[in-house]
Amino acid sequence: MTLYEDKQVKTNMKNKPFLQALKGEILEVPPVWMMRQAGRYLPEYMAVRKEAGDFLNLCYSPVLAAEVTLQPIRRYHFDAAIIFSDILVIPDALGQKVAFKTGEGPVLDAIREKSGLQTLNPNGFLNHLEPVFEALERVAEQLPGETALIGFCGAPWTVASYMVGGRGSPDQKEARLWAYRDEEAFGQLIDMLVEASILYLRRQIEAGAEVLQVFDSWAGNLPPDEFYKWCLLPMKRIVQGVKAVHPDVPIIGFPKGSGELYISYVEATGVDAVSIDTSMQCGWARDHLQDKVTVQGNLDPLVVVAGGKTMEAAVHNILATLSSGPFIFNLGHGLVPETPPENVQRILELIRL
Amino acid sequence: MTLYEDKQVKTNMKNKPFLQALKGEILEVPPVWMMRQAGRYLPEYMAVRKEAGDFLNLCYSPVLAAEVTLQPIRRYHFDAAIIFSDILVIPDALGQKVAFKTGEGPVLDAIREKSGLQTLNPNGFLNHLEPVFEALERVAEQLPGETALIGFCGAPWTVASYMVGGRGSPDQKEARLWAYRDEEAFGQLIDMLVEASILYLRRQIEAGAEVLQVFDSWAGNLPPDEFYKWCLLPMKRIVQGVKAVHPDVPIIGFPKGSGELYISYVEATGVDAVSIDTSMQCGWARDHLQDKVTVQGNLDPLVVVAGGKTMEAAVHNILATLSSGPFIFNLGHGLVPETPPENVQRILELIRL
Repeated sequence: MTLYEDKQVKTNMKNKPFLQALKGEILEVPPVWMMRQAGRYLPEYMAVRKEAGDFLNLCYSPVLAAEVTLQPIRRYHFDAAIIFSDILVIPDALGQKVAFKTGEGPVLDAIREKSGLQTLNPNGFLNHLEPVFEALERVAEQLPGETALIGFCGAPWTVASYMVGGRGSPDQKEARLWAYRDEEAFGQLIDMLVEASILYLRRQIEAGAEVLQVFDSWAGNLPPDEFYKWCLLPMKRIVQGVKAVHPDVPIIGFPKGSGELYISYVEATGVDAVSIDTSMQCGWARDHLQDKVTVQGNLDPLVVVAGGKTMEAAVHNILATLSSGPFIFNLGHGLVPETPPENVQRILELIRL
Repeated sequence: MTLYEDKQVKTNMKNKPFLQALKGEILEVPPVWMMRQAGRYLPEYMAVRKEAGDFLNLCYSPVLAAEVTLQPIRRYHFDAAIIFSDILVIPDALGQKVAFKTGEGPVLDAIREKSGLQTLNPNGFLNHLEPVFEALERVAEQLPGETALIGFCGAPWTVASYMVGGRGSPDQKEARLWAYRDEEAFGQLIDMLVEASILYLRRQIEAGAEVLQVFDSWAGNLPPDEFYKWCLLPMKRIVQGVKAVHPDVPIIGFPKGSGELYISYVEATGVDAVSIDTSMQCGWARDHLQDKVTVQGNLDPLVVVAGGKTMEAAVHNILATLSSGPFIFNLGHGLVPETPPENVQRILELIRL
């Protein structure tokens, strides 16, 4: 029996390695998935994307969304599928106009004053998201038995930064300014997003999600006090709100770029795992985070574009540092459109050899 | 004698509090300056800017550059003046076309291949920068006796990210990809920038700079191995190269956004001080950095736009946490154009009261 066969047998004996790792088990072969694994680098995705036309239309077409969710599972046998959707479906469902324009990303009718909050309608917003739940149900039916299904949402701070800024911005200036100038009104927006996120995530579980990930992509620029107020505490409330109803569903937090504040985040929010970004030292994550939660990460998506020996060395470095604790292999951010699909395949070979 | 008078007397008895803090002294009233203290928030700056026309023309006009450098000193009596210039004068002096377009920031003729390096000419580039040295000489003559003069440059990684990307980008994708794909060629670009930075900084000292700051504004997204290669080691070489000739001139490093990697940076580069960005916990900086070097930072420039009690609380929090060690009060990033000048005044009152 080769090492390869031995490992395969052990993996197959257990059900869903991804869930095992989230329970704190240390697996010989870590489970692996990749942020934006369903995306523009895959020709089969581009074909469906073309069929769907508008990006939001793809998110809201259960058959097509399920199809693109499953594409990378078929191609690569990742240990988890993540439902194809977008973090901005929540503002869209709350009644804020959201459009995805080619080449410039999402554009929203910005809300920058208290009065703007009244244009949002949290009643019945879940109805608007029914297509997402139907897509989850479709994926759950079709997934291989060893593959886990991840539901997700954007964290309140990150979603708010788009709602207030009207688009993505590297410094989230408008949202940060509003939070300083009128903490109460901005807090009402965050509260609304916390409540909406809890309801949305619960329904995703009921539709078949076995794990949740909450993406706080813009957590990294905030001063610590603001981070506590707008990232850490809202996430704590979300975890509590979801776990009050579904205590056994693991939740992964991703406070991207928050550096040494990851420690407080892990200690305070009650997440089962954290996704670490590309800039974090794996050794530091091992020493300061992995003793508390499962760590997921953190290959640079750009090294996957480059490929070759540089990519292999980066993969081995992460495996060597984090495999001794509860660990899920992933990227530090999403795959980019220029990624050669064969480089993704090579990473899976390196991990599962 | 009131507390106020007592503190003033102590401060005035010593020469240049800014230099004292950089030598590791703990002052009762910490020295203070602000990144981009000479800038668009000041009406007197806007008047000179209009006169100069093109932004680079302002950088290369010794009389005007000296004038805008001195404006915030006259208005606020900061403890340090920083020569008005830009980090992109080095590529400009090396022969790469650099333009500043209103509303979109700097635009360069991007270099993305090894052959592009041959278009750069490091011989005699210092001649192109003579106006900067003349501006420094002019400022040095006019500065009050207690005010220190800071020279600066961009760190090689950050400058390279503009040279390769052709403009600022939140993820420095082009530079990172080139570094992965052709480490040797990208390394040659970094080497060239290290050498140019050393020569440029030495000449700034000879023209009157008493302190140097090296801005690595885009250090925060790099994976740790890349951070070591392209930020930490080049900075170490710059510090060694400058100190070989000017051992007593303090050097402040600013590896913005590099989180827990600040520790390695401080330990390895030989800097006398680090500027910490807005996202860093002051308590963490006190515990992990201030025992090794002087810490400078880190008020959020956006809280200075907001002003009021929120700003006052943020100032007090920083003072309370960092004043017990060697400390320079500053921002975590540059002042923005929307800043009300009276809020800057208020901060100085809070610090010096």
